[in-house]
Amino acid sequence: MAPQFKQLRRAYGFDEVAIVPGEVTINPDQTNIDFKIENFTFTIPVIASAMDAVTDVNSAILMSKLGGLAVLHLEGVQTRYEKPEEILSEITQASEAEITPLLQKVYSQPIKDNLVGERIGAIKKAGAVCAVSITPANTKHLAPIAAEAGTDILVVQSTVTTARHISKSYRGLIFSELRKSIPIPIIAGNCVSYSACLELMRTGISGVLVGVGPGAACTTREVLGVGVPQITATIDCAAARDEYQRESGRYVPIITDGGFRKGGDLCKALAAGADAVMLGSILAQAKEAPGLGHHWGMSHPHPALPRGTRIKVGITGSLEQILFGPTSVTDGSQNLIGAVRTAMGVCGAFTMPEMHQAEMVVAPAITSEGKFWQLSKSLH
Amino acid sequence: MAPQFKQLRRAYGFDEVAIVPGEVTINPDQTNIDFKIENFTFTIPVIASAMDAVTDVNSAILMSKLGGLAVLHLEGVQTRYEKPEEILSEITQASEAEITPLLQKVYSQPIKDNLVGERIGAIKKAGAVCAVSITPANTKHLAPIAAEAGTDILVVQSTVTTARHISKSYRGLIFSELRKSIPIPIIAGNCVSYSACLELMRTGISGVLVGVGPGAACTTREVLGVGVPQITATIDCAAARDEYQRESGRYVPIITDGGFRKGGDLCKALAAGADAVMLGSILAQAKEAPGLGHHWGMSHPHPALPRGTRIKVGITGSLEQILFGPTSVTDGSQNLIGAVRTAMGVCGAFTMPEMHQAEMVVAPAITSEGKFWQLSKSLH
Amino acid sequence: MAPQFKQLRRAYGFDEVAIVPGEVTINPDQTNIDFKIENFTFTIPVIASAMDAVTDVNSAILMSKLGGLAVLHLEGVQTRYEKPEEILSEITQASEAEITPLLQKVYSQPIKDNLVGERIGAIKKAGAVCAVSITPANTKHLAPIAAEAGTDILVVQSTVTTARHISKSYRGLIFSELRKSIPIPIIAGNCVSYSACLELMRTGISGVLVGVGPGAACTTREVLGVGVPQITATIDCAAARDEYQRESGRYVPIITDGGFRKGGDLCKALAAGADAVMLGSILAQAKEAPGLGHHWGMSHPHPALPRGTRIKVGITGSLEQILFGPTSVTDGSQNLIGAVRTAMGVCGAFTMPEMHQAEMVVAPAITSEGKFWQLSKSLH
Amino acid sequence: MAPQFKQLRRAYGFDEVAIVPGEVTINPDQTNIDFKIENFTFTIPVIASAMDAVTDVNSAILMSKLGGLAVLHLEGVQTRYEKPEEILSEITQASEAEITPLLQKVYSQPIKDNLVGERIGAIKKAGAVCAVSITPANTKHLAPIAAEAGTDILVVQSTVTTARHISKSYRGLIFSELRKSIPIPIIAGNCVSYSACLELMRTGISGVLVGVGPGAACTTREVLGVGVPQITATIDCAAARDEYQRESGRYVPIITDGGFRKGGDLCKALAAGADAVMLGSILAQAKEAPGLGHHWGMSHPHPALPRGTRIKVGITGSLEQILFGPTSVTDGSQNLIGAVRTAMGVCGAFTMPEMHQAEMVVAPAITSEGKFWQLSKSLH
Repeated sequence: MAPQFKQLRRAYGFDEVAIVPGEVTINPDQTNIDFKIENFTFTIPVIASAMDAVTDVNSAILMSKLGGLAVLHLEGVQTRYEKPEEILSEITQASEAEITPLLQKVYSQPIKDNLVGERIGAIKKAGAVCAVSITPANTKHLAPIAAEAGTDILVVQSTVTTARHISKSYRGLIFSELRKSIPIPIIAGNCVSYSACLELMRTGISGVLVGVGPGAACTTREVLGVGVPQITATIDCAAARDEYQRESGRYVPIITDGGFRKGGDLCKALAAGADAVMLGSILAQAKEAPGLGHHWGMSHPHPALPRGTRIKVGITGSLEQILFGPTSVTDGSQNLIGAVRTAMGVCGAFTMPEMHQAEMVVAPAITSEGKFWQLSKSLH
Repeated sequence: MAPQFKQLRRAYGFDEVAIVPGEVTINPDQTNIDFKIENFTFTIPVIASAMDAVTDVNSAILMSKLGGLAVLHLEGVQTRYEKPEEILSEITQASEAEITPLLQKVYSQPIKDNLVGERIGAIKKAGAVCAVSITPANTKHLAPIAAEAGTDILVVQSTVTTARHISKSYRGLIFSELRKSIPIPIIAGNCVSYSACLELMRTGISGVLVGVGPGAACTTREVLGVGVPQITATIDCAAARDEYQRESGRYVPIITDGGFRKGGDLCKALAAGADAVMLGSILAQAKEAPGLGHHWGMSHPHPALPRGTRIKVGITGSLEQILFGPTSVTDGSQNLIGAVRTAMGVCGAFTMPEMHQAEMVVAPAITSEGKFWQLSKSLH
Repeated sequence: MAPQFKQLRRAYGFDEVAIVPGEVTINPDQTNIDFKIENFTFTIPVIASAMDAVTDVNSAILMSKLGGLAVLHLEGVQTRYEKPEEILSEITQASEAEITPLLQKVYSQPIKDNLVGERIGAIKKAGAVCAVSITPANTKHLAPIAAEAGTDILVVQSTVTTARHISKSYRGLIFSELRKSIPIPIIAGNCVSYSACLELMRTGISGVLVGVGPGAACTTREVLGVGVPQITATIDCAAARDEYQRESGRYVPIITDGGFRKGGDLCKALAAGADAVMLGSILAQAKEAPGLGHHWGMSHPHPALPRGTRIKVGITGSLEQILFGPTSVTDGSQNLIGAVRTAMGVCGAFTMPEMHQAEMVVAPAITSEGKFWQLSKSLH
Repeated sequence: MAPQFKQLRRAYGFDEVAIVPGEVTINPDQTNIDFKIENFTFTIPVIASAMDAVTDVNSAILMSKLGGLAVLHLEGVQTRYEKPEEILSEITQASEAEITPLLQKVYSQPIKDNLVGERIGAIKKAGAVCAVSITPANTKHLAPIAAEAGTDILVVQSTVTTARHISKSYRGLIFSELRKSIPIPIIAGNCVSYSACLELMRTGISGVLVGVGPGAACTTREVLGVGVPQITATIDCAAARDEYQRESGRYVPIITDGGFRKGGDLCKALAAGADAVMLGSILAQAKEAPGLGHHWGMSHPHPALPRGTRIKVGITGSLEQILFGPTSVTDGSQNLIGAVRTAMGVCGAFTMPEMHQAEMVVAPAITSEGKFWQLSKSLH
């Protein structure tokens, strides 16, 4: 008998793929990029991530006005501190040496239930669609409070979330029970594989976040060795979505979350099968972002095994400019929506489901360094 | 049923492939590298691209005398300004910070119909073959003017051009109608896939430009995520050309456009199936080029989502030296035609169709850095 | 007949793979990471390597107390010198130019049989499990001395060890005879292929060390061209272990040795099939390590063809902190056991055999350099 | 009908492969590394290349005494100048800017027939085996002179040499005729493909040189786009050798030429199927080499399309030390023969034909840069 070796499937990230133009092209202004979570329709397929440097009450209201959605983290500084601005300022001003212990300390303060209600109330009062994020372990306590305060959408998110979690200390979260008790759309994640995504959809949730350790240098990949590059993760979860629709008749959108660095990455995720994208660091560069030109990944760093630290990202423009332009920069960091519509145009895709059919190739971002490199960089 | 995952085909760029010598070798001086567009025969398979830094009236005349072809862009500075030299000088002297807004402004000036006729007239008066480039959206207006002014060849070019474009604001260009109304050869592009190329050829055009976002750092790839490495694009379009010849009996040449950095790249494109190559940045380095040692990509940068900026390329020699040598540089930047003939010689290819049969391998341009690297660089 | 070309199988290293989370997750505190060598059970699957910069009597005792195992090299400074501290200090203080000749000289001193007994005695007297390492050529002489001194486990190790070695100057070591004469568990290695590992297991040994020239820049790979990346080596030897268990009913654990740089690498080795990992450079960074912040690879450098030199690794924390945390660093260099348990948790693996079933993907550690690189580095 | 795309086979270079140890190991001193060209037996499988910086009369004599072979180029400075030392000194002292034009000028001097005889005579007088190199175009004139002067072996070499060359200006060289007129062994090359190598062997020659543009940065690859990485070239030509032996009964050795940077590369070439290796730059670093610490590639740079320039390689030791050690360096640049014997030992190969059976894997020399990189570099 031939030896049975463990098989490894090849996975691809943003930098390794490209979209092939179609046989027909259409004008960008004829594309429809609507994104739906149950009865909520957003005019752009972009969600601001549940990170303290990206989303606070004000930026959530602005994001909703611009047609997208922002998720407020209910376990971050906004619900631990009456005056989160002070803490945010402290975080952005700490030195490199101080930052990880400081983050560990900042997030060890207790969550205040009354602040959960206040933050949601402020968003709703402004007429914005409100989405809030909680971790599975805190869901039983926080979800009812959030629902009562009027949140429209509930996001249950952790590094890896599955349909079934086994623990000695608490009974694992059952999404089907949660949905029965809280009659609002639930988005859950993150996951990266076909089977894990399919199992999550079968619990009755309304959206799935895709993305675990997408980059080789992601700390989840470095510290745990765990992760899947985003294009393959998106392709796999899109296949699960399509399979789930065949078996149930219900279309559950998938949202690729993490690893985006420029407009081309958004286009690739959508062509790979994503219904929307969740952006963190790109939006942390908006002048309206609470991080004041900084970004840090974890809302509650592990006291014994922290992952992620604070990064200076700078402020590159307004949120509106980042999303819609106009711009004079040519690096793909602004007018993301213009880039998505243009890419759909050259693929001949009127709608996102048509964009999901776009042909893609593996085209690695590796080149020998030559003196024409910078040149070719700019000309096509 | 096994899950249905989206499939990605592997695509290759110049740096990832190499040509394998043949079983027979021939002397370079016995190779025939003629290139034909309908009744026009060029003695070298090189076309200067329709970019303001590469082609003006004078360089177009020189290029024709040297046996090749240059394409004058009818929507660039040559037709927007009476004295383009002044604008070219302004562009080459602007600072890094000023350049993209300046380009956006320069190309917002209207095209002057009378200048279209003047530029074409000047090229024809010198006895050169004249080719001019227009974008699909302006074809109905500019093509008749160019034809009347006596252009020999019409190039209809945009980042992605297909046989059918759908727009709310204007009726898409129909190439078969265009050819009926303008009885001169039409070259169209750019395209990168088998099916898109085949559809274009079926409209009756006389040549196809191949190349969209060929490099990972191309702005089309960065901003839109769209692009195909040039070797695979050329191989695919060559297959379309051969298929079209089988079905129609007509041979429509393909011209690989973009991403070239040295002589070896030209040889690889031709071995991959190209009938000719269109060069931008390499020719922008000629002392006769209008860019005065600079290059910029777009003839009309998008006002809201610009791609491509100005690059200093330097002046390395005369156009004749770049094309034919002799040279004392050993980096493949000069004597491009000598390189093509020598490569054909070691492949035993007398003609371009024979060169298309040369064996190629995937041989990535990746190596560990060692102290012999520079040495091995020079010795083979 | 088609030509018969030599076939090359693709092999993968740590940096090229990643672990895919499972469909079910479990709390890290519910994982069982015990590792067994015959009747010895260790509570963590980590072995300190038989290198003079990593293991001396004191660090061996500490490692045993922490639940793991350390291997004392019987052909290093500990058995060549009465006062090894003096030699260790000399090695760590030598200049770059002096170090290789110095190492060649230091290890040319004879091994003192009485010191073999003394070192083993000291470890046993402290109540620790004692493991010692010898090379095949010295096994006949040193193994009986070590056994008589009371060592619990014997490690027979060289760069490449096979079940059968052919030499003019001495009769090759026969492991089955060795085990009969010395009734303690024998761990042998290193090997990297299915067949070599299977042959070794068939001799009756109790554990196999896996790893030869795992990295491209390993000196074994540079000098000899020999080596196999660790993930493929581990997968192959795990298949041999499973095959051997099928044919014999006996489970012989495999220990991946070499090339580890961070916690994620440990997790990947275990997911690939390793029962435990042997760490050198990571543990040389402990403040209790004999190398005083330095590391050097060979216990006895070849006088004519040396491989490996001394490297400054620095001191990053206590051995306990490196293994168990807590930590405020986010680079995967500390709390290795926490990382292993967390990775098993997201894979839904209660035990190591379940972890061996975790799905893995090929996900290269290559990316284009962009300004968001550092950012994405920290956030997932 | 499905489109017919040109197919590209994957080719591998030294940095992308590694040798897998065998199931049995043998002591290095039991390996036999003899290499034969017809009746000439060499005790080491190493040939010094026909380059002016590597081989002159004195180094050829030394190389023969050490058991190998050196090839004197009959179209280099040794036969163009009475006192080549003066020219060599001038070349090594020229500035970067002067060097390519200087080389073009130096090699435009005529070859002096009397010097051909003198150089060969000097080598033979010392009792050494003499091999000389000529290009195909000059073979008819120079081969008889060299044979009459007593050369033992004739090397006919150019970048690409095939069994049939077509030229307007001269009748192509027919190897079968050459061998009839000159009754000494002929080594011809270079070639890289199965079919080209097989055709060459069928002409009756006694050895084949393998290697054209092996590295991505080789000038043949950069300037012409032509080349095949050495491992694949060697594997293909080894298959041709074996096929030719099956059809003719005659064993024609293949010699891998070019791209070697360290001992591991030699071992890999031999494991891939080479009978011997031809070294240039590594031997140019010997203190006895005529290049005085410099190296340059072409014996006669093309006047219009030069490839290769002068590189400073430094002097690292005596030829004997580079070949046989002993050494205190650990980077694989010295004791090449020790490395070959040790690699054969771990593969259990007594002879070169057994080494040709060694298993190899594809194991790319790519890694993420981390702080342990240098460490892992030294320890295995």
